Amino acid sequence: MAGTDRTRAEAEAAAVPAPAVVLIDPQLGENIGTTARAMLNFGLDDLRLVRPRDGWPSAKATSAASGADTVVDGARLYPSTEDAIADLAVVYAATARPRDMIKPVATAAAAAADMRAQARRGAACGVLLGPERTGLHNDDIALADAVLTIPTNPAFASFNLAMAALLIGYEWFKTGDETAGAALATGRTGAATKADLLGFFAQLESALDDCGFLRVMEKRPTMVRNIRNIFQRARLTEQEVRTLRGIVSGLTTHPPKARRRRR
Amino acid sequence: MAGTDRTRAEAEAAAVPAPAVVLIDPQLGENIGTTARAMLNFGLDDLRLVRPRDGWPSAKATSAASGADTVVDGARLYPSTEDAIADLAVVYAATARPRDMIKPVATAAAAAADMRAQARRGAACGVLLGPERTGLHNDDIALADAVLTIPTNPAFASFNLAMAALLIGYEWFKTGDETAGAALATGRTGAATKADLLGFFAQLESALDDCGFLRVMEKRPTMVRNIRNIFQRARLTEQEVRTLRGIVSGLTTHPPKARRRRR
Repeated sequence: MAGTDRTRAEAEAAAVPAPAVVLIDPQLGENIGTTARAMLNFGLDDLRLVRPRDGWPSAKATSAASGADTVVDGARLYPSTEDAIADLAVVYAATARPRDMIKPVATAAAAAADMRAQARRGAACGVLLGPERTGLHNDDIALADAVLTIPTNPAFASFNLAMAALLIGYEWFKTGDETAGAALATGRTGAATKADLLGFFAQLESALDDCGFLRVMEKRPTMVRNIRNIFQRARLTEQEVRTLRGIVSGLTTHPPKARRRRR
Repeated sequence: MAGTDRTRAEAEAAAVPAPAVVLIDPQLGENIGTTARAMLNFGLDDLRLVRPRDGWPSAKATSAASGADTVVDGARLYPSTEDAIADLAVVYAATARPRDMIKPVATAAAAAADMRAQARRGAACGVLLGPERTGLHNDDIALADAVLTIPTNPAFASFNLAMAALLIGYEWFKTGDETAGAALATGRTGAATKADLLGFFAQLESALDDCGFLRVMEKRPTMVRNIRNIFQRARLTEQEVRTLRGIVSGLTTHPPKARRRRR
């Protein structure tokens, strides 16, 4: 199952281009580099730069990208936002909820789902990010179809460029990812069968009968159920059932010797 | 509605403590600071440090926290992971899927949902993050209830501490946030009523009849429907309908003058 899902996800990743990230008037080369790194963490590799203040290429960007060289080296330069988005069909502006504009506003998750759906139909997508200090200019927001906003602590809401790109990339990646929300990693061993488990229960309960732990007969059914629930909940593997059987055997085989030693 | 939701979300934030972030053997003070900043972006403020390599307090951490001083100043030091988690009831280990351990594995989203549910029942939660280079030691993973894993590009999966904390905090925040996925920001003006819109349609279609744009009568019904759909889709506000009515009036009031000027 996991193998099949991975293959399907990979096929989709190849077929559906990830959104472009368009940095408008970015200031520090270092921030461009960390943004490139954050993008590649989630498979985004189309980086577009509009008027980077400190010039391009940038050694600081390459250094800060920590290995995301493909993204930095492939970055394209544009003289204006209009040029940078000309080939795109769906553009989000990453910014706080606008006060003075009438504009659709989507969370990063909703925007990612929309871009995934549009990209599957062949529409090229992109996200605009403004300069570090001031954020996006209203004229750039007006070029976008909608605002992408990241729900955040209102008392401390400032992100740097890379963190914004990371969260946008993360939401994009999640819309194409089929990892199970919760699963049990079992390595090379498999889940125990119920026969394995019932064999262990029989051994354990017999040992508990022998040592007198279950001697109060009116309480015995409840206690047995409670003990069984502990081990059911642990979702044991075959290997672990063998380990537990060994523990019970070990604890019951040499009780006089062990007691003697302790005294 | 938005006001009500915000109030409910804020009441919950006050009532349900966010997870602790436990950094085990963190190396650079700077990384502790950026982690504190990422935590506060999503309202997490319980930072715990186990054996920070470069000592504590750290001027570099304070500087890198960019204003998240409450988190840095409130960080607590512990000599061991066991001490750092003693008061917690639910502990996740943030790491890649383990190869040699039998362990429940949850995505960041599933882990956040679980921690939110447990925290609502009064269980204190926390997430372990290992040192920058090596990640969590297996002995620390064995102290956790489950592994928290962030779905990521398998070809470029390395995060720094702050980015991992950011994504974990983001997922936690989302489980308590009720921001609508998509909405229309309209500022001080409200959505147009259908009467407003129908009034504009009547004005526009009459003007288009007058100028001959709709002269082919068998095509007229389809063209009217197509034009109406353009403006329906725009989900116009009252103000915008007034603007559009003004545009149509403007375009029809002085056509001879305008044409004369252009020549």
